[in-house]
Amino acid sequence: MAGKLATFHEFRSRMNEKLLSEGNLQLKRFFNLDSQVYTNGALSSRTKELMRLVASAVLRCDDCITYHLIRCAEEGVTDEEFFETFNVILIVGGSITIPHLRRAVETLEEIREKGAKGETRKGRNGEERKGRMEETGKRRKEK
Amino acid sequence: MAGKLATFHEFRSRMNEKLLSEGNLQLKRFFNLDSQVYTNGALSSRTKELMRLVASAVLRCDDCITYHLIRCAEEGVTDEEFFETFNVILIVGGSITIPHLRRAVETLEEIREKGAKGETRKGRNGEERKGRMEETGKRRKEK
Amino acid sequence: MAGKLATFHEFRSRMNEKLLSEGNLQLKRFFNLDSQVYTNGALSSRTKELMRLVASAVLRCDDCITYHLIRCAEEGVTDEEFFETFNVILIVGGSITIPHLRRAVETLEEIREKGAKGETRKGRNGEERKGRMEETGKRRKEK
Amino acid sequence: MAGKLATFHEFRSRMNEKLLSEGNLQLKRFFNLDSQVYTNGALSSRTKELMRLVASAVLRCDDCITYHLIRCAEEGVTDEEFFETFNVILIVGGSITIPHLRRAVETLEEIREKGAKGETRKGRNGEERKGRMEETGKRRKEK
Amino acid sequence: MAGKLATFHEFRSRMNEKLLSEGNLQLKRFFNLDSQVYTNGALSSRTKELMRLVASAVLRCDDCITYHLIRCAEEGVTDEEFFETFNVILIVGGSITIPHLRRAVETLEEIREKGAKGETRKGRNGEERKGRMEETGKRRKEK
Amino acid sequence: MAGKLATFHEFRSRMNEKLLSEGNLQLKRFFNLDSQVYTNGALSSRTKELMRLVASAVLRCDDCITYHLIRCAEEGVTDEEFFETFNVILIVGGSITIPHLRRAVETLEEIREKGAKGETRKGRNGEERKGRMEETGKRRKEK
Repeated sequence: MAGKLATFHEFRSRMNEKLLSEGNLQLKRFFNLDSQVYTNGALSSRTKELMRLVASAVLRCDDCITYHLIRCAEEGVTDEEFFETFNVILIVGGSITIPHLRRAVETLEEIREKGAKGETRKGRNGEERKGRMEETGKRRKEK
Repeated sequence: MAGKLATFHEFRSRMNEKLLSEGNLQLKRFFNLDSQVYTNGALSSRTKELMRLVASAVLRCDDCITYHLIRCAEEGVTDEEFFETFNVILIVGGSITIPHLRRAVETLEEIREKGAKGETRKGRNGEERKGRMEETGKRRKEK
Repeated sequence: MAGKLATFHEFRSRMNEKLLSEGNLQLKRFFNLDSQVYTNGALSSRTKELMRLVASAVLRCDDCITYHLIRCAEEGVTDEEFFETFNVILIVGGSITIPHLRRAVETLEEIREKGAKGETRKGRNGEERKGRMEETGKRRKEK
Repeated sequence: MAGKLATFHEFRSRMNEKLLSEGNLQLKRFFNLDSQVYTNGALSSRTKELMRLVASAVLRCDDCITYHLIRCAEEGVTDEEFFETFNVILIVGGSITIPHLRRAVETLEEIREKGAKGETRKGRNGEERKGRMEETGKRRKEK
Repeated sequence: MAGKLATFHEFRSRMNEKLLSEGNLQLKRFFNLDSQVYTNGALSSRTKELMRLVASAVLRCDDCITYHLIRCAEEGVTDEEFFETFNVILIVGGSITIPHLRRAVETLEEIREKGAKGETRKGRNGEERKGRMEETGKRRKEK
Repeated sequence: MAGKLATFHEFRSRMNEKLLSEGNLQLKRFFNLDSQVYTNGALSSRTKELMRLVASAVLRCDDCITYHLIRCAEEGVTDEEFFETFNVILIVGGSITIPHLRRAVETLEEIREKGAKGETRKGRNGEERKGRMEETGKRRKEK
């Protein structure tokens, strides 16, 4: 795995570990809560990941957008769905979000390339994750 | 129809009309685009309304939250789904969103009361809309 | 002078006085600097007031919008110019600014009504100010 | 206890209860964490309350500002300290924070009046709290 | 054309093309609207570009600031006018905008150097554009 | 002095000089005021630096965070205190601040390494400053 995504994952993992090993109990609790919130419940984790992508984009945080694009792709979000999500972001957040959408499109391209090559990444709990989940058949349709 | 929601609807309609009647072509186009984006497509309008609710809440706009709570309720979003949405808002946006969630809970209560009484409101295009859509059977399940 | 604008002016003046009388030297200096920045220079105070209106609106501060609408009207900004400014706000800041624009339109209406009746308000330095400046002939054309 | 502060407390308590009684486990955990973070630790709860006031003000949330003004006053923050805090808010956050500072000054005035009359309010855990803590001698000096 | 500006232009053009070729109709419409809004009207496109610069800076988007600095320079905005604009940004948005102003000053320097060398860039519609417009005599004076 | 911090200091100093030498009187006044506000007063400069760190982080400005981490370290803020400050940032500002905290932890690491090597940096007024102040004995305890 090479390129920007690899760099992103490496820095993210290394620094999250540092935050959690050096941080106090409250920091750990926040991180735990942050994971719990996005599991399947009344709303699917897929829908919640899409919500997070929208929230990250209107708050204009590139690293968050990158992470949620990856997670959404893992949940089987299609390009057509991504672009409708970008519409929502653009209309609610305005043209100030456009530079972030430009970078999102580039990131999405790298995600799709890796997925096409069947590359995987380590999940939070160390298990291997496919770059894309469409082929796993576990994807839940939104419509 | 009485209370805060009625006041909200009345002011919103009156001022939107003013904006559109006095505004220029570009303003009208933005409003048109704003409607088009939320229709059913690759993503359901229900999912998009939930996205808008999240975006409005992390950007902390009370009027937007009110409007999207109403729209989500019309799309049949359940209380359990609303509270999972509030979790996403709270985690991404932090405790600064709590005062908005307090007001959201109050608004939601008024929406449910009206729905229970079978009250309707005028939709954008003048047709009557039910306060809730659950009983219409047209609701698409998220899960 | 009655209505929302009067209430706005009264609270604003009373609290600014309190801030300045109880506040420390640095607070006074900030307020002074805040006045100096908008006087005529390489850019006209008219252009700067329009800039402030845009900044206030994309940062979504209703009180700031109200104040800068008043100041812009004093600088002779026309309705057509206001609506083109609203276009800029809407495109850059997105639909999240719409509730603020609805309130801006209502405020603008009250400003124009007062102007039509020839009402005046006290300026910062106590001198009387016309609600509108068009008739004074001192207005500088933008184009 | 009367006036705006009483209304604020009543709505805040009532809606927090609703959020917690109707909300899910994650919402409760967030609220718990939100309390834990501000207890005495390496930094005093007084310093943390001042930090919260600054954060609330630069993020421009009036209800949050009101609550942290109350909490800071309970921690014995003096008017001189409040105004130096307002300086920090104003410099970092800019003139867009001024309307919030105007409302903060009004709130502070009501807090001091209540304190002078020896009024108390119910704390989170039901115990009575003094409006001000200066006279309790428990205040820790910042300097 | 070399340096940061060239890199900026290249990435911006390439990704805008991707967004527009892969995006849906609503995305295209937003981009169209985004162009229409800044043409000459009741307000000059020069004034509108200055407004956009202010909006971008108080919302703290470096790429947007870079683009609007370029566009403002093309509209003949002088250094004196730029620095008065920076004053407005700094006062409204606070010291949090300073890092963006530092980068803006560096960008402006590169823009002026290119202008002095008579370099041009491709406009949106493919026609060549001068780096500066002062010498073209088409500049409209603000004052 | 090498690495990211050195690059940060170099760019910051060079561009501040440019802003001040080319900027107008109002810009200089803002910069002066920005320094005055953080000197010892009713609140210690240490407390004010911590406030600035919180404000910078919830407003999500990496350069500001870097600068205030350096300044806080100079004021003798300990790692335990930094992590409690990160708790406040995380709770108030939400998970959207996490990428900034990851970078903050990396920056803090570089600051501590330099401090351990006894490296110094030039202060605003040209005098040499220690990377850490703990050993100078001038540190005022918070608790």
